[in-house]
Amino acid sequence: MSPAPSNGTAMHALIGELFPICRSITGDGLRQTLARIGREIPLTLHEISTGAEALDWTVPNEWNIRDAYVADLTGRRIIDFRRNNLEVVNYSAPVRARMTLAELRPHLHSIPEHPDWIPYRTSYYQETWGFCLTDRALQALPDAEYDVVIDSTLAPGSLTYGECVLPGTEPDEVLISCHACHPSLANDNLSGLAVATWLAKVLAAEPRRLTYRFVFAPGTIGAIVWLARNPDAATRVQHGLVVACVGDPGPFCYKESRRGNAVIDQVVRLALKESGVNFQIRPFAPIGYDERQYCSPGFNLPVGSLTRTPNGMYPEYHSSADNLSLVTPEALEASLDMFVSVIDLLEANLTYLNQHPFGEPQLGRRGLYGALGGDPNRGEHEAATLWALNLSDGRNSLLDIVQHSGIPSPTVRLAVDRLVAAGLLARAPE
Amino acid sequence: MSPAPSNGTAMHALIGELFPICRSITGDGLRQTLARIGREIPLTLHEISTGAEALDWTVPNEWNIRDAYVADLTGRRIIDFRRNNLEVVNYSAPVRARMTLAELRPHLHSIPEHPDWIPYRTSYYQETWGFCLTDRALQALPDAEYDVVIDSTLAPGSLTYGECVLPGTEPDEVLISCHACHPSLANDNLSGLAVATWLAKVLAAEPRRLTYRFVFAPGTIGAIVWLARNPDAATRVQHGLVVACVGDPGPFCYKESRRGNAVIDQVVRLALKESGVNFQIRPFAPIGYDERQYCSPGFNLPVGSLTRTPNGMYPEYHSSADNLSLVTPEALEASLDMFVSVIDLLEANLTYLNQHPFGEPQLGRRGLYGALGGDPNRGEHEAATLWALNLSDGRNSLLDIVQHSGIPSPTVRLAVDRLVAAGLLARAPE
Amino acid sequence: MSPAPSNGTAMHALIGELFPICRSITGDGLRQTLARIGREIPLTLHEISTGAEALDWTVPNEWNIRDAYVADLTGRRIIDFRRNNLEVVNYSAPVRARMTLAELRPHLHSIPEHPDWIPYRTSYYQETWGFCLTDRALQALPDAEYDVVIDSTLAPGSLTYGECVLPGTEPDEVLISCHACHPSLANDNLSGLAVATWLAKVLAAEPRRLTYRFVFAPGTIGAIVWLARNPDAATRVQHGLVVACVGDPGPFCYKESRRGNAVIDQVVRLALKESGVNFQIRPFAPIGYDERQYCSPGFNLPVGSLTRTPNGMYPEYHSSADNLSLVTPEALEASLDMFVSVIDLLEANLTYLNQHPFGEPQLGRRGLYGALGGDPNRGEHEAATLWALNLSDGRNSLLDIVQHSGIPSPTVRLAVDRLVAAGLLARAPE
Repeated sequence: MSPAPSNGTAMHALIGELFPICRSITGDGLRQTLARIGREIPLTLHEISTGAEALDWTVPNEWNIRDAYVADLTGRRIIDFRRNNLEVVNYSAPVRARMTLAELRPHLHSIPEHPDWIPYRTSYYQETWGFCLTDRALQALPDAEYDVVIDSTLAPGSLTYGECVLPGTEPDEVLISCHACHPSLANDNLSGLAVATWLAKVLAAEPRRLTYRFVFAPGTIGAIVWLARNPDAATRVQHGLVVACVGDPGPFCYKESRRGNAVIDQVVRLALKESGVNFQIRPFAPIGYDERQYCSPGFNLPVGSLTRTPNGMYPEYHSSADNLSLVTPEALEASLDMFVSVIDLLEANLTYLNQHPFGEPQLGRRGLYGALGGDPNRGEHEAATLWALNLSDGRNSLLDIVQHSGIPSPTVRLAVDRLVAAGLLARAPE
Repeated sequence: MSPAPSNGTAMHALIGELFPICRSITGDGLRQTLARIGREIPLTLHEISTGAEALDWTVPNEWNIRDAYVADLTGRRIIDFRRNNLEVVNYSAPVRARMTLAELRPHLHSIPEHPDWIPYRTSYYQETWGFCLTDRALQALPDAEYDVVIDSTLAPGSLTYGECVLPGTEPDEVLISCHACHPSLANDNLSGLAVATWLAKVLAAEPRRLTYRFVFAPGTIGAIVWLARNPDAATRVQHGLVVACVGDPGPFCYKESRRGNAVIDQVVRLALKESGVNFQIRPFAPIGYDERQYCSPGFNLPVGSLTRTPNGMYPEYHSSADNLSLVTPEALEASLDMFVSVIDLLEANLTYLNQHPFGEPQLGRRGLYGALGGDPNRGEHEAATLWALNLSDGRNSLLDIVQHSGIPSPTVRLAVDRLVAAGLLARAPE
Repeated sequence: MSPAPSNGTAMHALIGELFPICRSITGDGLRQTLARIGREIPLTLHEISTGAEALDWTVPNEWNIRDAYVADLTGRRIIDFRRNNLEVVNYSAPVRARMTLAELRPHLHSIPEHPDWIPYRTSYYQETWGFCLTDRALQALPDAEYDVVIDSTLAPGSLTYGECVLPGTEPDEVLISCHACHPSLANDNLSGLAVATWLAKVLAAEPRRLTYRFVFAPGTIGAIVWLARNPDAATRVQHGLVVACVGDPGPFCYKESRRGNAVIDQVVRLALKESGVNFQIRPFAPIGYDERQYCSPGFNLPVGSLTRTPNGMYPEYHSSADNLSLVTPEALEASLDMFVSVIDLLEANLTYLNQHPFGEPQLGRRGLYGALGGDPNRGEHEAATLWALNLSDGRNSLLDIVQHSGIPSPTVRLAVDRLVAAGLLARAPE
């Protein structure tokens, strides 16, 4: 399952292509983004009508925007959505008015600590409007009159999400979910879209034991709509990961599922440890991305979140500085590799039964043991063989054997494969 | 429930008033003490006759004492109960004799390491007699004859204890117990009597969910008599604290219940932690005050002990140096505040059920969420709201939410109150 | 149960007597060794025929050897089994040939890092032959022709093991197992044979609650044969220890059973801790001695391994340097003492029920408590008494009381004995 060497570059190119599009939780920018992903992987698009109920929520009016600006009376655009779609508060209601700075001021947002960055602001569920600009520009605004235009529509339509299912030989599902609603923000979360897309490409080309379900959906409402419409799929989710912020060069960070020690939690911790890179583990908290919904107490799915620098933890987060220069092909490629490693372990994580559990089976006559005994340098492979036999009592999975023995997973996997071939281990019944 | 500012002074005054009385495990000094407490709070006095059986014990003869001294043959009192009631071994049998120093010597007790302090000694269950004096006085005793008088009675009577019950809206009980048998010792345990009395005053003035039962009883035999006579009340005790040594300025010390992680243990640890002061946690041991009886294996009640410097851990313990100068109004007041904090948490510690457990409920339309999304500075209150929803699956109490989230209890309580008001949380059925 | 002072010397003498014998997993050297042990303790010898099936294994041909050497053409023996029986690969097939150094070389084994030591090599289950020699001798071998002779037989016969059962008043068994198959190696494992033999002598002279079963058997195949033939005894094994490498002066090392926290694990850890000497605890691993068989998943017996420097952890391991100078009478004696301490604790480790579990029983009237109360210097014995009463609720054994209270086991045992004598504790029904 090793990805091709050009994946990082290709993912970065996809991010560059999607960057200018004004995405939101509904609307044509979201549709256009999912259509582009659908040219890479088989993606089914779902349209859920405005007003549809989903758990405690209702699908809102669809938002589309053509233009937005604040201009001085000479017509010069001081704030301009066409320059950077962050300059309008996402989901702004239409407005067309001339107003004084004092009237306009409550609708302007900046980041005083980073005077050259434009903030990213949204107002999905409370109808309002606003603009975002650099603090330097805000401070320089003359006390004058301005023409204020937001050429948007908020009207019945639909919410769009995309789904790619890669069936395996077993019905148990792995959910890979990423939010697709952020406009011109590269790490959060075009990096997630790109890595999830390439992960699906990699997996589609390999035999699969487990079934993989990729969900590309707007944040919060998208996950809620998916959960509301897929109660059966949710019960089949045995492992899941939310993918976001995987393009920056920061160390990996795994946020555990609400269960804290689910198989996905153990597998990701092991994959990170065995990778040899720096990483951080954080316990679950109901703050973050769509793991909030998957890990709500009614569902309590085993879904963690694997990121590099997590949301809110890098200064550029939710600002115009989260741009194409923040994400690198190398980081994207290493992120993809890490997800592939995680899935390799999930695929291999079976539970076996020792077929000769009373005493050790005689390994020598099966060619599984150094023939000349007494050598004090017994190798790691023999240790892995003995551990696999000793722990395969039906209560320990391959992952448990790796964790308990402290032997690297590739060695344990090889030993297990040879024991299975020799008839000494057999997969345990469920 | 914040106590009035003068509580510390008032408690210190009560200690001063009770200090000269010669208390014991029975007798008029004990009765007089309980009567004085009964002028502060509604206290029911119980008299249990000598010879009554209580668990493995029998109520002993009642002890009363009028005078005791050792005088030289000129009549000068060298040891004098009337100067300090510690100078007689508590529960001494009557004696009236002239004897040599050699005959007297086995009946004299001092503390060589603290030559100016008088020790506190008792002999409740083995009939004997004795005197306590400073080691300096002991060493200076001329080898002469002495008149030895203990004008006491040991005769059928009764054992007295006091009980104050403050009913709440629920039958679950909180037991507050303190020993009332020590004579002129200020910290051990007049401080406990004073703080327990004032705690009852504070609680009596507030609405209460739980029922509070204050027991003022002689040590060991009093707790045993109470347990023997109140089997039903004991089964209703959901939380309990033994109060002692709470008047010195030392840091708080909580000795856990035998269960180790009962709700009372968790609540006291949290209250201490949130108070910001230094404190110490000690595991249960069957050595100490009446938690020994409440935590005997047959009862195993969730009763801990909250003290400042614990018994046996300060040099003045069980000596004449445990006097009015060892206890301060400030320490008493801060102790009272700590008990009030503990009880505030106990009262608030309910378990709730998230009424919309599938996905997050939409907080925005209920006014429970910042309307303008995307702001990276999400406040602690919103975090508390999300944690309360996420953990309210019926298995986590308010205390669990506080401990798991690491958010201060006042913030969590406010968030929970608002969620209850919005209909998103409801108290879980028992 | 304190062993006589000359035990160390006597054990060292036995090791010296057994050292020259060429033991293997079958054959006359093994028989001769067990016969010698049978002169110290009542030992039943079992002979299991070649070809007998035992679990996944088959008893191999019996091996006997009379002579083996490599001589130059002048007849000078360069390698000589009669000088040191390690010089032939154990279980070598017969050979009698003249060959060049090039032909001989693949059959020669040395230890380059220790050029003056002869390695110990075996080939039980793959028929081959070989010689072991010092690396210095190997490097000096002239490129010439040699006469190569191994005068051995590999033929149907039997495998021998010895068993000594010391019945107790209860059927629960303690298994003491040691491998008896190593030739001239003093620490591994003549030290184990000697200490196990003397432990049986000590125990045979004492009253016993538990039943002790000593197994002296060849490694791996011997334990497997014993397990295959004694399924009932295996189910009665409540505690077990594999004894090996107990003659060197290194610190003790306890390797836990597969269960990790079985009673034997707790008892050995406590005995080591209370001994005041340095020691090391290692978790179970399926690599080592016959605990591999006892702790195979089908049996999963509570069998740990108590050694000094463990197998593979001292440079002399499996070489001619593991000779009589590596083991000392003092180390042997201290090892025996440690096993005796472990067994003392096992014998004492009963569970009691407090006969007055509600409140404390009145200790004073039973003479179990200092008569004069109020003394702050309460002794450890009283603490042990109170802990024993408090924890004897049927869920805590004597061992649990020791571990939980932190009071040394002799003090707790004395307190428990006195409480039993006073009728306050009684042994809990199973």
